[in-house]
Amino acid sequence: MLTLYRHPFSPQSRFVQLVLAEYGAKVEFVTERPWERRREFLMLNPAGSLPVLRENDGPPVCGAFAIMEYLDETRGYAVGDRRLMPDHPDARAETRRLVDWAVNKLDNEVIGPFVRERIYKQDMPSSQGGGSPDSAILRAARSNIGHHLRYFGYLAASRNWLAGERLTFADFAVAAELSCADYLGEVPWAEEENVKAWYARMKSRPSFRPLLAEKMLGMPPAPVYADLDF
Amino acid sequence: MLTLYRHPFSPQSRFVQLVLAEYGAKVEFVTERPWERRREFLMLNPAGSLPVLRENDGPPVCGAFAIMEYLDETRGYAVGDRRLMPDHPDARAETRRLVDWAVNKLDNEVIGPFVRERIYKQDMPSSQGGGSPDSAILRAARSNIGHHLRYFGYLAASRNWLAGERLTFADFAVAAELSCADYLGEVPWAEEENVKAWYARMKSRPSFRPLLAEKMLGMPPAPVYADLDF
Repeated sequence: MLTLYRHPFSPQSRFVQLVLAEYGAKVEFVTERPWERRREFLMLNPAGSLPVLRENDGPPVCGAFAIMEYLDETRGYAVGDRRLMPDHPDARAETRRLVDWAVNKLDNEVIGPFVRERIYKQDMPSSQGGGSPDSAILRAARSNIGHHLRYFGYLAASRNWLAGERLTFADFAVAAELSCADYLGEVPWAEEENVKAWYARMKSRPSFRPLLAEKMLGMPPAPVYADLDF
Repeated sequence: MLTLYRHPFSPQSRFVQLVLAEYGAKVEFVTERPWERRREFLMLNPAGSLPVLRENDGPPVCGAFAIMEYLDETRGYAVGDRRLMPDHPDARAETRRLVDWAVNKLDNEVIGPFVRERIYKQDMPSSQGGGSPDSAILRAARSNIGHHLRYFGYLAASRNWLAGERLTFADFAVAAELSCADYLGEVPWAEEENVKAWYARMKSRPSFRPLLAEKMLGMPPAPVYADLDF
């Protein structure tokens, strides 16, 4: 049995959740609020960050990168054509480059700030940094998102999927990040038709359904969030 | 032939440089100043970040994570016992967790700020952000380094190498990051004897020699930097 320690609006948790669903893996979720720094959780992952995956009583697998490779190593061959890691080292490098872009660059410059300011801070006590969003931080994230969308648009226009001809982990890493900003109505889809068309394909996959059903108390999703024809 | 686009004080470039030397790979270096955003370099890696590896005329492999996995996939089996990635998925996950810690957490909270403020900014024109170091940023990095050293000290005390009984990519990722701060005299070695003893072992490896010979114009290394008996 797999257990995923995650937060419903942690972009990297969503990435792993999507991939687990694509691989048909049964998983139990434990919702973790990383800002609480719960002692038992810090013993699993001293970095205090999400996501963390455990298989039975095995050691914790910490972080999106380690989890992606772990799932590929332990389940990739069993899923045949649905494997999300290409076979050739060059194509694998391209997949990993884009996963890195999503979970680090896109997350640091855009999605992380949106989630922290507009979601996590609503749920945090003020002693842990909760409160109103910092408008300067939101402005910076809003001004950064365009560069990223243009780059994904370029990829989506020149390839079948983001990393090449086949669906890979990269598509899920990017889609998971964007889904969090989309919940908040922070993705200017109209500016990038190619990204929108690619995201519509991602969003229609059965693995996406549980994400589209997530709701944050007191903050309903943007109208397009769960709409497959947005 | 391999070509590594790197900067001599980019911690992640150093990580790759060490690993290439450990694997006995012949490599040519191209020194890149990422803040210049050179057009030909951005075409190789649109993220504009270091390191980037190319094999002959193959596609670029971008970022420490993708490069580490690429080197393991293309050369890991050939080096036998000297392979830096363990065989078991659990041990691989532990190696990747610590590489992630080094190149993201440690780099963001400590080493990246040191390198940017005290090295890169000396070399940048003021139009690109060059100038004197920001003392508030340096203070934050100095106050953060202790937590990291304590954690590495705990690992070094309970294991032969950081990720377990054998030498892995994790040791080189952490050592490469610390080496940049060590050049600047910013590592309080005396506070963590176990980290110091582990780093002394790392520093004595032949792969480390070229790093210890690096000098920055106008800023000599701290006295202990190249001293194997520091």
